[in-house]
Amino acid sequence: MSDKILDNINSPTDIKNLSEYELNELADEIRTVLIETVSENGGHLASNLGVVELTLAIHKVFNMPVDKIVWDVGHQSYAHKIITGRKNQIHTIRKENGLSGFPKRNESPYDSFDTGHSSTSISAAFGISCAGDVSKDNHYTIAVIGDGALSGGLAYEGLNNAGRYKKNFIVILNDNKMSISKNVGSMAKYLTKTRIKPSYLDAKSRVQETLAKIPVIGKPLANTMKKLKDWVRDEFFGHRNNIFEQMGFTYYGTFDGHNIPQLVTALEAAKRKKGPVLVHVCTKKGKGYEFAEKNPKAFHGISSFDIDTGEPKSSAKGYSYILGKHLCSLAENDKRICAVTAAMSSGTGLEEFSKKYKDRFFDVGIAEEHAVTFSGGLAAGNVIPVFAVYSTFLQRAYDQILHDGALQNLHIVLAIDRAGIVGEDGETHQGIFDVAFLNTIPNVTVYAPASFRELELMLDKAIYHTNGTVAVRYPRGSENYLPDNFEPSAEPYSLYGDADSDDLIITYGRTFSDVCTAREELDKKICILKLNQIKPFSEKAIEIALHYKNIFFFEEGIKNGGVGERFGFSLYQSGFNGKFDLTAIENYVTQSTTQSALHKLGLDTENIKLKLGMRNEK
Amino acid sequence: MSDKILDNINSPTDIKNLSEYELNELADEIRTVLIETVSENGGHLASNLGVVELTLAIHKVFNMPVDKIVWDVGHQSYAHKIITGRKNQIHTIRKENGLSGFPKRNESPYDSFDTGHSSTSISAAFGISCAGDVSKDNHYTIAVIGDGALSGGLAYEGLNNAGRYKKNFIVILNDNKMSISKNVGSMAKYLTKTRIKPSYLDAKSRVQETLAKIPVIGKPLANTMKKLKDWVRDEFFGHRNNIFEQMGFTYYGTFDGHNIPQLVTALEAAKRKKGPVLVHVCTKKGKGYEFAEKNPKAFHGISSFDIDTGEPKSSAKGYSYILGKHLCSLAENDKRICAVTAAMSSGTGLEEFSKKYKDRFFDVGIAEEHAVTFSGGLAAGNVIPVFAVYSTFLQRAYDQILHDGALQNLHIVLAIDRAGIVGEDGETHQGIFDVAFLNTIPNVTVYAPASFRELELMLDKAIYHTNGTVAVRYPRGSENYLPDNFEPSAEPYSLYGDADSDDLIITYGRTFSDVCTAREELDKKICILKLNQIKPFSEKAIEIALHYKNIFFFEEGIKNGGVGERFGFSLYQSGFNGKFDLTAIENYVTQSTTQSALHKLGLDTENIKLKLGMRNEK
Repeated sequence: MSDKILDNINSPTDIKNLSEYELNELADEIRTVLIETVSENGGHLASNLGVVELTLAIHKVFNMPVDKIVWDVGHQSYAHKIITGRKNQIHTIRKENGLSGFPKRNESPYDSFDTGHSSTSISAAFGISCAGDVSKDNHYTIAVIGDGALSGGLAYEGLNNAGRYKKNFIVILNDNKMSISKNVGSMAKYLTKTRIKPSYLDAKSRVQETLAKIPVIGKPLANTMKKLKDWVRDEFFGHRNNIFEQMGFTYYGTFDGHNIPQLVTALEAAKRKKGPVLVHVCTKKGKGYEFAEKNPKAFHGISSFDIDTGEPKSSAKGYSYILGKHLCSLAENDKRICAVTAAMSSGTGLEEFSKKYKDRFFDVGIAEEHAVTFSGGLAAGNVIPVFAVYSTFLQRAYDQILHDGALQNLHIVLAIDRAGIVGEDGETHQGIFDVAFLNTIPNVTVYAPASFRELELMLDKAIYHTNGTVAVRYPRGSENYLPDNFEPSAEPYSLYGDADSDDLIITYGRTFSDVCTAREELDKKICILKLNQIKPFSEKAIEIALHYKNIFFFEEGIKNGGVGERFGFSLYQSGFNGKFDLTAIENYVTQSTTQSALHKLGLDTENIKLKLGMRNEK
Repeated sequence: MSDKILDNINSPTDIKNLSEYELNELADEIRTVLIETVSENGGHLASNLGVVELTLAIHKVFNMPVDKIVWDVGHQSYAHKIITGRKNQIHTIRKENGLSGFPKRNESPYDSFDTGHSSTSISAAFGISCAGDVSKDNHYTIAVIGDGALSGGLAYEGLNNAGRYKKNFIVILNDNKMSISKNVGSMAKYLTKTRIKPSYLDAKSRVQETLAKIPVIGKPLANTMKKLKDWVRDEFFGHRNNIFEQMGFTYYGTFDGHNIPQLVTALEAAKRKKGPVLVHVCTKKGKGYEFAEKNPKAFHGISSFDIDTGEPKSSAKGYSYILGKHLCSLAENDKRICAVTAAMSSGTGLEEFSKKYKDRFFDVGIAEEHAVTFSGGLAAGNVIPVFAVYSTFLQRAYDQILHDGALQNLHIVLAIDRAGIVGEDGETHQGIFDVAFLNTIPNVTVYAPASFRELELMLDKAIYHTNGTVAVRYPRGSENYLPDNFEPSAEPYSLYGDADSDDLIITYGRTFSDVCTAREELDKKICILKLNQIKPFSEKAIEIALHYKNIFFFEEGIKNGGVGERFGFSLYQSGFNGKFDLTAIENYVTQSTTQSALHKLGLDTENIKLKLGMRNEK
C-alpha cells in the first residue's frame, strides 16, 4: 500500500534521515499534493511549488518547533504544513474550518507567527530571536522572505535593526525574480546583478588568488601594489561590497533553491556562523507544474483550475477589470491621469493601462506607504494620481493618507479594490477596515459603488468633482443582482421603493444587492436608502431617514467607527426615536467562501430577510 | 543702519551673487536669528543650526520656487524660511497664526510639500519630480533627508523606487550622526564607515591611477591582471560598491556641510549629472551655539530657554518621566519586561531604562512599523514588550497593530505618549487620532489615565491583567488639577459627585481636570463619569449614564469614530432619550499653545462651563 514516502512523514523528525534520493522523491510527492489541492481549493500555487526543496532543507537542518521559522507573507507555507503533521488536513486548506492558507499560531506549534501581509517576517522573527535571548531560551530563528517582499520598507527596517546586533539570526532570501507582479525597484535590479555573478564565495577566493599573484617589483610600485591590495581587500572582504553585508549581515549566496544537498550545506553553514546571516537562494516560481512555470503570475493566487489545461474554472470579469478599463478611457483624454500600483497591476486591473500609458504608470513595488506619499508628490505636482490598491493593504498607509494626503488636501484618488469580505484568504485579507479608518481622517471623501456603472460614475466624480483626498471602494469579483428600476448614480444617496413606508433599510456597496433581493422576496413596501457617498454622508440622507419608524442598517465593514454607527448617532442626535438596528462586522472574519462569511455575519439575503421579518416586534 | 547682509535678503535671488565671505557672514547672522527666535518661541534648534550653510548653498545653486525642495521632517527649514521672504515673520514661528515650524504649502510657494513625520521626503519629492515629467514641466527636485530619517522604511521604499528610474532627481543626505536619539541601526554604522573614508571621488581617481600603473609582464600574468583590472573596475565603478549606488543612485560624498564653496561645487555637479544622485553632506547639529553643539539631543526640540546658560525656562517632570520610572521599577522585579522605542528614548522617558536594562532595551531607530511588529515577535516569544511612542507617530503602525498584534491577540503593550493636543508643533503632531484608529481594531484595549498615579496603575493593569494588545495613552507634560476626593483608579470607570443629579459629564484623560474645575466653579451637584478604560468601554458605564437627563461628553480626540460618538450610539441604542451633547475634535488642529487650542476646541474649563451653563436650555 504505502509506497509513498509522504505516508511516513508525520513530523519533521521523519525527514531527518532521508537520503537525497528520498528527499527528492518526497519533493515530487508534495508537489503532486500541492497541485491537486490548489486546483480544487484555489490558493497560492506558484510560490508553494517554488519552495518545496527549501522547506525540506530547512526542516532537515533545523529543529522545529524548538527553532522558529517565520514565513513572510505566508502563502508559501503549504509544504511546511504538509510535513509538520497537517498532511491529512491539507485538502481543507482555505476552506471554512479548514487549514488556513497562511501560518497560524493557533493551528500548530510549528507556526511561530501569523503572516499574510508582506514584509513582516524579519521584524517578527528578530523579535522572537531577541525574546529568546531575554528569556535565556536558546534557539535558532529564521525568516524566509521573497525578493518581492524585500521592497517593503518594513523589511528594510527589520534588516537595519537586526543587522546591528551580533545575535544569531538567519534570513533566507527566497529569490524567485518576481513578487506578485514582476518585481520592480532598484533592489530587484541589484539582486539580478548578484544572481548573474558567480557565487560570492567563489569570487572571494578568486580575488585572493589573483592578489597573491601580483608581482612586487621595486619599492614605489610595491607600495602602490600594497595599497591596492589593502584597499581591494578592505573593500571586498570588509562590510562594504554587498548590500546585505553593508547592513551587518554575513552573506551566503547564491544557492540553487531546488538542490537539497546544496541548500542543506548552506543552511548548516548559516547555523554554524555567529551573528546575523543572510542566505540567498534562487528558486523558480511554479517549479514542477508546466503551466505555473510558464505563467507564474496567473498561478500566484488562483481560483480552482483544471490540472490538465491550467485553465481556471471560472473567469468572470469583475470590478477590477472595469476600473482598469475606465481609467484607460479617462487617461486617453486627460494627460494628467496617472496610475499607481504597489506590485498589483494585474490584480487591480491595470495591465492595459501599464502598456498603453507607460509614462504615466508607476509600479512602485510592494510599498503601499511609498505609493501614497509618492501619489501625494504627484498631486502636489498637479497631475492626478489614481492609486489602485486592495483594501487590506491600504491599512499600511494610514498615516500617509492622513499626513501626506488629507492634511494637505492633496487630490489623491484611492481606488480601493477587494473592499469587504474577500473569502478564502481569511482574516488577514478581509477588506473590512478601510471605511472605519478613513472615517477617522478629516478631508477624506469616500464613495461606494454598488454596480459597475457606478464605479465608473464615482471614479469620474472622484477625479473631476471632488476636492482633496478621495476614495472609491468596491468589492472583489462581479456585479451582483440589481433591480429593474436601478439607476446608477454618483449622487450622495439613492432612494428605492415606497417613501411612505414605515420601514427603511440603509446600506451601501455590494450589500445593496442582497437588500434588494430580500425586500423583493419579503415586502416591496419597504424603502431602501442606498448611500453612495459614505463619507461624509449627506445631511439630507439623515433628514430622509428621520421619517421612518424602523431603520435597518446593513454594513459589510467593521462596526466600530463604521458608517452605521456614525449615521445612527447623527440620526439620534437629530431627534430620531424609532428603532435603529445595525448589522455590521464586530471582529476579524475567518476564512470561508464570501457567501458563507456574509451569511454568518448576517449580511446575506436570508439573514436580511430574517431581520426585516422582525421589524414589527419592537 | 543696514550693516547686516540679511537686511537685503528678501528672496533667494538676493543671495545668488554674494561672495563666499558674505555668505559666511549671512550664515552667522541667520544663526543669531535662529538662536534668538528659538530661545523665545521654543522649537527645533540643533537641526536648524546644522543646515544653515547647506540651505544657502541649495538656494544659490537651484532656482526656487521653480525648482522644488522637500525637507524631510521639516523642522530644519527655519533658515529656508528666513531667506524665502519670511524673515520678518520668523519671530512668529510656532505661535498661533504665525509661521509653522514645518514647511507648509499654504504658507509659501517655496514650500513644495508639507512635512512633519519622518522619512517622507524622498517619496514626495520623487512624486513631484515624476509629475514634472508627466506635465513636461522641467525642474529640479531635491529631497533633503537626515541620517536618522533614513532608518525609516518609507525612505528606503522611496530610494528603491527612485533608484530604478533614470530621471534627474537629487537626494541630499544630511548626515549629522544622530536622529532624535542617538541614531541606531546598521545604516547608521554604515554611514559612519563611509564618513571616515576619504571622499569616494578621490578614491575613484586613486584607484584609476593605481590600476594604470600595474605593469603587464608576460601573457598569463597580463591576463590575470586584466581580469583583476576589469573586475575591480566593474565592482568599483559599476553599481555595487556603495549602498546608494547599489540602489541606482550616483553617489557624491562626503562633503563638509559647513563649507559653502564645497557644497556649491557638489550641488553643481549633482545638477549636471543625469539620473538620480545622492549627495552625502556631513553637518554638525547645533553648529555655532556652544550648548547645542555639546548637547544636541537637549536642543533637538526644546521649549524656550536662556541663551546665556542654555537652560530651559521650565522643566517640570511629566507623564513621560513617570512612565520611565515606573517601567524601571516593574522591570526590576520582572525579567520579562522589555522596553522598545523608535529613536525616542529621551522623549518617552526611557533613558534610565536604557541604562539599567540594556539587554531588554531596544531602540529600533525611526521605524514605528518595525517597532510594533518586532514587539509582536517579542510577545510571541513570551516576553513582555512595552513600546513607548508618541501618539502621532503610532499612526504609522496602524496595520502592524491590527495585523501583527491584535489579530494574533499578542500581548503588546503600547505606552502612547503625547496623546491629545501637543501645542506648537501643530497639525502634523497632534495626538488626536490614536483613540479613533484603535477603536477600529478588534481585541485592542485602551486605558486613559488622568493622573500620574493612574498611569502607574493602568500600566500595571495593561501588563498583568489585560489580554492581547493593549494601550495606555497619556498627555504631554504634567499632571493637571485633581479634586480632593480624587481616587486614582484603573477600574473601567470612576464616578464623582452627586449620583442623583440630572446632569452627567462624561470624559477621559486629561480633560477630567478641566471638567472638575468647571463643575466646582459652576455647580457641584453635577455628576462626572470618568472613563478609565475607553475601549471597550464598560456596559455598566452605559447603564449608569442611562439614569441622567442631560449628558455632556468632552473628548480631546477626533470625533469621527471616537469614544463620544460610540458611547452616545450605545446609549441611544439602550433606550436613552435625554440630551447627549458631544464636544470633540472635528478637524486637524493648527499650532498654538495647548491651552489656546483646547480653548478653541471647547475643551478648556471656560468652555466646559459655558456648555454646562446651557444644560437647562434644551
